[in-house]
Amino acid sequence: MPCSVAQALDLVGDWWTLLVVREAFLGVRRFADFHDHLGIARNILADRLRKLVANHILSREQKNSDDRGWEYRLTEKGRDLWPILTALRLWGDKWIYGPGREPLIVRDRDRGRVVRQLLPADAHGRPLDPRRLVAVAGPGTSPQVAARYRRSARRPVKSAR
Amino acid sequence: MPCSVAQALDLVGDWWTLLVVREAFLGVRRFADFHDHLGIARNILADRLRKLVANHILSREQKNSDDRGWEYRLTEKGRDLWPILTALRLWGDKWIYGPGREPLIVRDRDRGRVVRQLLPADAHGRPLDPRRLVAVAGPGTSPQVAARYRRSARRPVKSAR
Repeated sequence: MPCSVAQALDLVGDWWTLLVVREAFLGVRRFADFHDHLGIARNILADRLRKLVANHILSREQKNSDDRGWEYRLTEKGRDLWPILTALRLWGDKWIYGPGREPLIVRDRDRGRVVRQLLPADAHGRPLDPRRLVAVAGPGTSPQVAARYRRSARRPVKSAR
Repeated sequence: MPCSVAQALDLVGDWWTLLVVREAFLGVRRFADFHDHLGIARNILADRLRKLVANHILSREQKNSDDRGWEYRLTEKGRDLWPILTALRLWGDKWIYGPGREPLIVRDRDRGRVVRQLLPADAHGRPLDPRRLVAVAGPGTSPQVAARYRRSARRPVKSAR
């Protein structure tokens, strides 16, 4: 069954993979620093970095000629993982740590307003009401499951609270 | 290191777990239907459903007395996984399937506007500019890593393109 969720999980659904990406968002670029911050075995880290480079989520660049190694940087494809990490973080903040115990806060640098939710929007950035959304078959679906999406389209994707 | 991303991945980072949750969002409630739709081994499905119920992401209810089994429904904690699934789906749509080949489309039931992105917003739903966000230590951080967040706070969480 064609599914972008399953495909995305195949590429980045591994526990260590997403924590390596989290470190990259926090500015980590070198093997030794990933290793220090994550407390991950060197062979596992090397494997995850290799796969992230092979999948074009990180780029690997030699810093200069008297080098002490490589630098890993998020590509555009990698930076686009930001909503996935943020969604995981906000859910963990709410349901595991709880209000007032968030390990990390992300806020607006100008006014200090804190990111508390991710809102669905169209391509132009216009917000859409989660209670009025329905799932329908996309152009890439298989004929077998198109009928199923038509059935599920009768009900909102996200129930009203 | 306290981290909501890591904690959330511990609970829902398993490949099959998130696909079971995806099915629940599409309206699936019964063991036999999860089994049919996912093509998952019965013992793995039983294990994932048991863990999701134990973690209060799904509730398990007996439908009626002449029952043919249980019904599994998303709790509020489970419905709050919607941004995680959506973020994974949109990333897979963009970077794996590509425009025009999305297997599933989620759209506004009134005007047909399609969900294409998730935008960060504050608690009141006011959108925040991703390019102006910084990560800072939260109240639940450990003293050891607070200094690190202070360093990373000098740079935007998400680079401008």
